[in-house]
Amino acid sequence: MRRSRSEAKLDRTMDVFWERGYYDTSVEELVRRTGLHRAAVYGEFGSKRRLFEASLRRYREKVTAELFEPLAQPDAALADIERFVRGIHDAATRPEKRVGCLMVNTASEVSPRVPSVARIISTFLDDLRRLFRRACNNSRLRGEIRPDIDVNQVGDYLVGSVLGLWTLARSPAPPRAIAHYVEGVLKFVDGLRPSATRSRHRRRGRHSRDRDKD
Amino acid sequence: MRRSRSEAKLDRTMDVFWERGYYDTSVEELVRRTGLHRAAVYGEFGSKRRLFEASLRRYREKVTAELFEPLAQPDAALADIERFVRGIHDAATRPEKRVGCLMVNTASEVSPRVPSVARIISTFLDDLRRLFRRACNNSRLRGEIRPDIDVNQVGDYLVGSVLGLWTLARSPAPPRAIAHYVEGVLKFVDGLRPSATRSRHRRRGRHSRDRDKD
Repeated sequence: MRRSRSEAKLDRTMDVFWERGYYDTSVEELVRRTGLHRAAVYGEFGSKRRLFEASLRRYREKVTAELFEPLAQPDAALADIERFVRGIHDAATRPEKRVGCLMVNTASEVSPRVPSVARIISTFLDDLRRLFRRACNNSRLRGEIRPDIDVNQVGDYLVGSVLGLWTLARSPAPPRAIAHYVEGVLKFVDGLRPSATRSRHRRRGRHSRDRDKD
Repeated sequence: MRRSRSEAKLDRTMDVFWERGYYDTSVEELVRRTGLHRAAVYGEFGSKRRLFEASLRRYREKVTAELFEPLAQPDAALADIERFVRGIHDAATRPEKRVGCLMVNTASEVSPRVPSVARIISTFLDDLRRLFRRACNNSRLRGEIRPDIDVNQVGDYLVGSVLGLWTLARSPAPPRAIAHYVEGVLKFVDGLRPSATRSRHRRRGRHSRDRDKD
């Protein structure tokens, strides 16, 4: 019970940082909005920065883990990359919160200036790149992508595309612009397939998972 | 003389906001680093927010205008989009400053919460989208891109790609990851061409401008 109360406070803390960013969130604001005691910020966590880092880890465990789900199975492949991109698109454009992704916001706002935060962001980017690469390698083994594809290049491109998508979603760009952007990324992914199979996959629609049908 | 002294101060102010962001820059810091008087921040500009907005306009006029140059001619086309993307890549990866783009940083840090700032960012995104669209339309008239291409989709995709590139450059991602990302965006652009002309353009190398050779 004690643990779940303190988890709930950390969740609320994470939400405040997510919405307002690190630098504009004062300890006073956190105390007011989360139920944390001022003494706990310094006593339990050591500083606002440490509390922020705990929030990032909580976000990674709670929010990111769910978004990463399509890529999490060891046999994830190209159709799962497409599911993942569509999942981010859905999450990023929910009208009730255009707050972006706490990791991506932090990559821009905080990581250039705080090395301990940069390490958390760096690990996040590496994890994502590794998931993309694994899915590409699986697809290559099954002949779902062309043999000349550079899996490292694709992994890095997709990581950058995720940053672009979240940054666009937090910007004042209209939803149509975000949809057009996602279309471009999915076109890139589809372009990895041998040309004969491209339109076939596209016709299967949003939620198909072609590897289930092999 | 008076005017150029105050312009120099605005340039230094812009640099501080560019490096540190809006929320972590205090008026004290600005006074210390720019030569502005505290009274001028409030007297001449009205508030820190107004001074920030003046810095954004200065950035737009000075830094962005230069980066937009390849797309600025009325007859800009696909090869100019490629020059533009490579120019951003060069600017974003200069080792002396991995500070990103003030507009893109602000799109994420400030625009969701300050409507007057969101309007400046929105205009910036619209300008960029319009430049991309014009270049695509010019290319279409010359038969340089496939007739089925949706110019609005391409414009929005490229705007999002620019946000992705700058966000990646400000993140702890290594330079190789950024290069791979740019490669993916250029692949998308090259994919707009009728298939017979693709490799021909790619072989021409970085700084060719094929419209000069028509």
